[in-house]
Amino acid sequence: MREQPPIRLHHLGIAVRSIAKQGAGYCEMFGIEAPGQPVNDELQKVRVAFADLGNGVAIEFVEPLGEDSPIQRILNRGGGLYHVCYEVSDLEAHVERVRARGGLLVNGPVPASAFGGRRIAFVYTPGHDLVEFVEVRKPH
Amino acid sequence: MREQPPIRLHHLGIAVRSIAKQGAGYCEMFGIEAPGQPVNDELQKVRVAFADLGNGVAIEFVEPLGEDSPIQRILNRGGGLYHVCYEVSDLEAHVERVRARGGLLVNGPVPASAFGGRRIAFVYTPGHDLVEFVEVRKPH
Repeated sequence: MREQPPIRLHHLGIAVRSIAKQGAGYCEMFGIEAPGQPVNDELQKVRVAFADLGNGVAIEFVEPLGEDSPIQRILNRGGGLYHVCYEVSDLEAHVERVRARGGLLVNGPVPASAFGGRRIAFVYTPGHDLVEFVEVRKPH
Repeated sequence: MREQPPIRLHHLGIAVRSIAKQGAGYCEMFGIEAPGQPVNDELQKVRVAFADLGNGVAIEFVEPLGEDSPIQRILNRGGGLYHVCYEVSDLEAHVERVRARGGLLVNGPVPASAFGGRRIAFVYTPGHDLVEFVEVRKPH
């Protein structure tokens, strides 16, 4: 059994008004696999779909669920690429490392329906990049 | 011999004032490999260094070479994650596909010193995402 690395790139988040239109259009334009079945995340007020890039990394297209979705703010600034997600074995430790260096916890840890209940957290780095962590395994 | 896929994620571009400070700080914070030796790209007026993420994808930290570097505009808006780069086997065909769908060619194709002279091009997608293409092989 291969050891799980402590951190690995999991997906890139792209904000779109419509997964069916801009999401599918992005994949068609670049010649990558079309987005899979969308999943609603009521907690984050978003609907997401993943397009596999082939090397264990995906694009996550994120569209708003309702007018009060936090993603509306990103879309009002033009949308597009807005976060990177790393899969980590120790969610709390990674959040703490970011906070200890002047970053901020934005959201979480909370379970994410898009990842079968595995927990996620969003942080801002000291350089103001939005980064998501997703836990390798669902908690017992 | 495995066939080269027509497109694959190559790196994520993060704009920083200093590779030695913010670039190294990012890697230390997330526990990823430190950035390699920086390379000057006089044509793009940037200095870049790569941090390997392990699955064939890297982070490219980009700092300005001089006050008239185009990256200053990105830094003045806060810096951070600002482009995705795909490695492609047919640069012209990919640029043309983006243009045909309402995107824009921003820069290139031009050789890039950071990739041993392999050609790159920057495009804006119709959704206003900045995307770089890098050619798989150096032209003959």
